[in-house]
Amino acid sequence: MASAVDVPVALLGYGTVGSAVDRLLQENSEDIERATGHRLRVVRALVRDPGKERPHPPAEGILTTDFAAIRDDPSIALVAEVMGGLEPTGDHVLDLLRAGKPVVSANKQLIARRGADLFSTASEGGVQLRFEASVCAAIPVIKILREALVVTTVHRVLGIVNGTTNFILTKMGEGAEYAQALAEAQELGYAEADPTEDVTGADAAAKMAILATIAFGSRVVLDDVSYDGIEHVTGEHVRAAREMEMVVRLIGAATLRDDRLDVRVGPALVDRHHPLAAVEGAFNAVMLQGDAIREITLEGPGAGGMETASAVVADMVSVIGTTGTGFLQNDACWRELERLPSAEMRSPYYLRIEVDDVAGVLAQVALRLAAHRVSIARLIQHQADGSATLHVVTHEGAEGDLTSALREIEALPETRGTPSALPVISDRGVPGLGWS
Amino acid sequence: MASAVDVPVALLGYGTVGSAVDRLLQENSEDIERATGHRLRVVRALVRDPGKERPHPPAEGILTTDFAAIRDDPSIALVAEVMGGLEPTGDHVLDLLRAGKPVVSANKQLIARRGADLFSTASEGGVQLRFEASVCAAIPVIKILREALVVTTVHRVLGIVNGTTNFILTKMGEGAEYAQALAEAQELGYAEADPTEDVTGADAAAKMAILATIAFGSRVVLDDVSYDGIEHVTGEHVRAAREMEMVVRLIGAATLRDDRLDVRVGPALVDRHHPLAAVEGAFNAVMLQGDAIREITLEGPGAGGMETASAVVADMVSVIGTTGTGFLQNDACWRELERLPSAEMRSPYYLRIEVDDVAGVLAQVALRLAAHRVSIARLIQHQADGSATLHVVTHEGAEGDLTSALREIEALPETRGTPSALPVISDRGVPGLGWS
Repeated sequence: MASAVDVPVALLGYGTVGSAVDRLLQENSEDIERATGHRLRVVRALVRDPGKERPHPPAEGILTTDFAAIRDDPSIALVAEVMGGLEPTGDHVLDLLRAGKPVVSANKQLIARRGADLFSTASEGGVQLRFEASVCAAIPVIKILREALVVTTVHRVLGIVNGTTNFILTKMGEGAEYAQALAEAQELGYAEADPTEDVTGADAAAKMAILATIAFGSRVVLDDVSYDGIEHVTGEHVRAAREMEMVVRLIGAATLRDDRLDVRVGPALVDRHHPLAAVEGAFNAVMLQGDAIREITLEGPGAGGMETASAVVADMVSVIGTTGTGFLQNDACWRELERLPSAEMRSPYYLRIEVDDVAGVLAQVALRLAAHRVSIARLIQHQADGSATLHVVTHEGAEGDLTSALREIEALPETRGTPSALPVISDRGVPGLGWS
Repeated sequence: MASAVDVPVALLGYGTVGSAVDRLLQENSEDIERATGHRLRVVRALVRDPGKERPHPPAEGILTTDFAAIRDDPSIALVAEVMGGLEPTGDHVLDLLRAGKPVVSANKQLIARRGADLFSTASEGGVQLRFEASVCAAIPVIKILREALVVTTVHRVLGIVNGTTNFILTKMGEGAEYAQALAEAQELGYAEADPTEDVTGADAAAKMAILATIAFGSRVVLDDVSYDGIEHVTGEHVRAAREMEMVVRLIGAATLRDDRLDVRVGPALVDRHHPLAAVEGAFNAVMLQGDAIREITLEGPGAGGMETASAVVADMVSVIGTTGTGFLQNDACWRELERLPSAEMRSPYYLRIEVDDVAGVLAQVALRLAAHRVSIARLIQHQADGSATLHVVTHEGAEGDLTSALREIEALPETRGTPSALPVISDRGVPGLGWS
């Protein structure tokens, strides 16, 4: 083999993901050479403490605390950022891109918050910045959006992009209460000791910002994503969903309508025939809906050191394999779309309304909904001790109309407490087509 | 724009898929230019009858009956084969590759039968041959296997790769009998007037040959795939499956074990928690199991002119985007694996055994299974009129052992008719991991 096939690469970070990247590159060097004609070899890895005990120590002399030793080494062809965090990580990545080094990043917070800066710097430097591992670990959703769906106008991305909350909701579907399911998730290592980032929907929001940016070609940052978590999902929600042949899931939804976009994360009821309803446990799934493809759903593990490393290495291989071609080396953003006012977002909804169990209340509720163009698709009424709980599924309606109707319903003398509403996911790419 | 961005391409065939490719290239030329820096433009399309009335006629002067006008035109950078059939298609593709033109093909029969020839010719000519659209239309499973999973050793591919049979089996799951479900599929255009290719499993076998070849890096041709169809699936199978919380699906399975491979297609019972159980109607899905990724499942429409065209165009864009790099331009086959003797294949099984309803029969059946190392996981017995039907789900056992046991069971004086067996699909990439 000529030495030209040897491609020295560097890592920022050598933790779980970084050491897995190193091992994957070593163990699969022949596969990579078959695909690209090159052998990728880790020659430097930036760490804070080279003396630290590591379960998978790297080869002698790889670890360094000196970022400049990576940035200024002309032999290093590519850097994978697997250290996480926003600073100094962001500045390191910018420095590398300015130095003409392509970067692969697994850092969703960094990409979701500083994407504009990072991608414009990459474009100016004429180098690639790839980030498959930043969303859904080994599920290659970015590659599919950018390469396989290059001629499909994707108008909707629906995702279960947080495994922790999906595990908790799956357990609740089996009868557990929220606190119990969360404790089990923590015990199994699916949830952190402080689960805030996951259960509030913040983690999912960062991933949806990245997916929406790539799908729609318009920058969506974390602040553009409205999100709600699963802390207020109760056993009653889950049981009502089951009674209506649905399941509760934390859904990220990015929608393009009339050249305006909406990106949000929140609990939703998913029809049991919908592909996302079948996603159980700590798995992730993303459904892409578009004109030429109808819909494609990708499911797999959304976390894990080896899974994340596998996506990092695939990106490294793609960078090396396409360098010099101009293929997908531009920023994925090419337009600036306005936000769709949330009042104009349309969805079917599940409503939970508690009322006095007296004659005529149901008619009052239906009248208020109808007055705001929200029609009822299904209704279940549970009666107990003089009160009644209405579980309603509506046809598609505008969020603004629904909010107005619910305000009037709450003001009815017979209504107890505040009605709650969750969106319902039942739509398919093209209803009826290829679907029975 | 400089003229360098203009890339003339040609089509073999201008039917449903061909005209859709032409339209997608025109309507998405800006997207393609953003991704590759080039504009792809159809300048020639080979057809038998240029005078034929077409729902989407091409621009003036595109259609030709002269293959040499495409092969010998040095300006044509790439050819998409969307004419189907084996001859003269195969020779045309070989001629084009020899002439140094990269080819994108949507032709599963051609790739599954003549892959060895085609890929060695492409390698010799140093040009790409891509074929995403030959399997599962718009679902980018080939791209994922070759690019995203480059460092994952895939050891199993499980697929629902025929929409017609999946539609029929879904309908049977809702209560229809086979003939009735087939008639409905024909009425809706999901099944041909002559459905043989689909219902016998032959169509799925060709697709599994292609998927196995790419996944395992060893040539698998159609003749290597053992297949069975759905003609013998009855309402009773479907009801028994439901009773055991499973569904019947036509499953393609490619398995790598101890560096030997097995590729087959046949009806199977799928556990209702398995992602493939959720695939309904005419949709397709492929599950890839491998070490670094655990498992990734891709689901989407497996047919359709626009869906197929979208995959063809994505391949064209990838060819143009990576030309000159050596990236993935080799034959995906790099080793020759032996076939695993089918007797050594292991699976859990569903067994249906009809016996006289007399004391001790069940014990006899269990003894025969145990003698061949097949243990029973679940059993349901239905009694009627002096006979009993045993529905048995076994733990994983070797096919050879099961066959021996069933032969002995059939020979029991109490056994009526021939026992039947179907494999059960319930395994996940790594059981227990990320899965509750």
